[in-house]
Amino acid sequence: MDQHTIGLADAMADAARAMDEGLDQLLPRPEGGEARLFEAMRYSTIGGGKRLRGFLVLEGSRQFNVSHESALRVACAIEMVHAYSLIHDDLPAMDDDDLRRGKPTSHKAFDEATAILAGDALQTQAFHVLAGEETHPDPAVRIELVRLLARAAGARGMVAGQALDMAAEQAAQPLDESQIGRLQLLKTGKLIEFSAEAGAVLGKAPGSLRMALGAYGRELGAAFQIADDLLDATATAEQAGKATGKDAGAGKATLVSLLGLERARIQAERLVEQARRHLDLFDERADLLRKLATYVIERRN
Amino acid sequence: MDQHTIGLADAMADAARAMDEGLDQLLPRPEGGEARLFEAMRYSTIGGGKRLRGFLVLEGSRQFNVSHESALRVACAIEMVHAYSLIHDDLPAMDDDDLRRGKPTSHKAFDEATAILAGDALQTQAFHVLAGEETHPDPAVRIELVRLLARAAGARGMVAGQALDMAAEQAAQPLDESQIGRLQLLKTGKLIEFSAEAGAVLGKAPGSLRMALGAYGRELGAAFQIADDLLDATATAEQAGKATGKDAGAGKATLVSLLGLERARIQAERLVEQARRHLDLFDERADLLRKLATYVIERRN
Repeated sequence: MDQHTIGLADAMADAARAMDEGLDQLLPRPEGGEARLFEAMRYSTIGGGKRLRGFLVLEGSRQFNVSHESALRVACAIEMVHAYSLIHDDLPAMDDDDLRRGKPTSHKAFDEATAILAGDALQTQAFHVLAGEETHPDPAVRIELVRLLARAAGARGMVAGQALDMAAEQAAQPLDESQIGRLQLLKTGKLIEFSAEAGAVLGKAPGSLRMALGAYGRELGAAFQIADDLLDATATAEQAGKATGKDAGAGKATLVSLLGLERARIQAERLVEQARRHLDLFDERADLLRKLATYVIERRN
Repeated sequence: MDQHTIGLADAMADAARAMDEGLDQLLPRPEGGEARLFEAMRYSTIGGGKRLRGFLVLEGSRQFNVSHESALRVACAIEMVHAYSLIHDDLPAMDDDDLRRGKPTSHKAFDEATAILAGDALQTQAFHVLAGEETHPDPAVRIELVRLLARAAGARGMVAGQALDMAAEQAAQPLDESQIGRLQLLKTGKLIEFSAEAGAVLGKAPGSLRMALGAYGRELGAAFQIADDLLDATATAEQAGKATGKDAGAGKATLVSLLGLERARIQAERLVEQARRHLDLFDERADLLRKLATYVIERRN
């Protein structure tokens, strides 16, 4: 770990622990006939993953002195949406993955029906958490979060990205660079953008600062996606904690397959530079966000 | 059709037409690489079904002079959630149904991946619609609708009911009467209760009236479920517009299999009486809601 990321790893680990506690509180405890559903919801959310999205919510919130409880609830809601999307993407009818975050995917650990329902209920629970009074005393703030999350996650956002991804596998010719860019903006970028922006919404920040954080999130998300594709192309499954080499196997066009490793790396670095520049309006409280931008392209899993 | 239901059929048909127009506006038009996803979202929502839940929203809203646009948006949101649940329930890993509302189920008309994603995006879109300013000028009203819908549809509501239903099929012994009652309250009752209550939320009605409408919805939902099970036991697939006789085939315990046709009918009638009694606080504007209670147990599809 180089000097850019000193302190970041500890902060991310602390944040992940806080999110685990938050998720434990916000998700139903396994009991009764629904125990299996509740277990599956917890299995895919608590105790795994980098928590990049939730971390963005927490660090964005810190710029505006948002209360820890508010920020943590929104961070947990985002992680629920992210987990739901992974559960459904891993299903046999979709990417058909057996391994996720170093353990069996939901439909392998439970069964397909339970995995579908756990994903469904995690999405609902995210909106339920945002709607709760504890998230923010002002209902206008809560409903704005609901509106933005629904836009980022739905048919004009994350789900559209996954649909494009499925369609690309069937298509006669591979996607070009701009089509791949759009796919990835929808599939992962929109949710990361929302995560970066959410703190500004919670803190009722001026529009210019909210937009800057959103733009930071967009560039960060694009860099993150290239890094993910680079990992898929170069890491072993053990290192990545999930199946790798799948993109090439599935004939999936990524920026890495299109540009080659070296040019893809350069593009990711350029995106990170741009992401950091959007933070120029912020003081040293944004240093972890600055380090995070570097981290996303240097990470090894 | 007897005297109780005169006028109701026309009103329901008018409401269904209005919802079709609303859904056409509120759902994305098929274009671009996501066209298939958008088509699937529209296929399962526009132009089909009784629209019981949306009708309840519209008629509940009428008691409190809620604007047509507000009521229609909430009605459409509910129908999106209902449609999403049907798409996912019909999947091969769940109930594995080929026929729904007289046409092929979503995964038959499209494919499994598209059906999963269309369901996912319909749920998100419902929350997006509720969060929109056009739904109600007061953000406190909009966020209350989000909170109530999320509670009714999620891990403590509809999805829990479906999980119980799946678990019951695997169980060594059939459910008893109280377990079936709880399953059905969760699986269909909660969403119908919300639908009946939503107009009171939009109209900022006194708590007593809101509770009365909710209670009406709960009883109506229970009666509706028994009627559905009676149809499954007695109607042909052509009459019902979906596969019938499935409950017995799957060894599913319902109140009909437990009590027998005659006692189940009597119980449904008692529930309808109770539902109507909760409307005693309302004037003649609630007559269609009164007629609806009778209709749900007399319908033939």
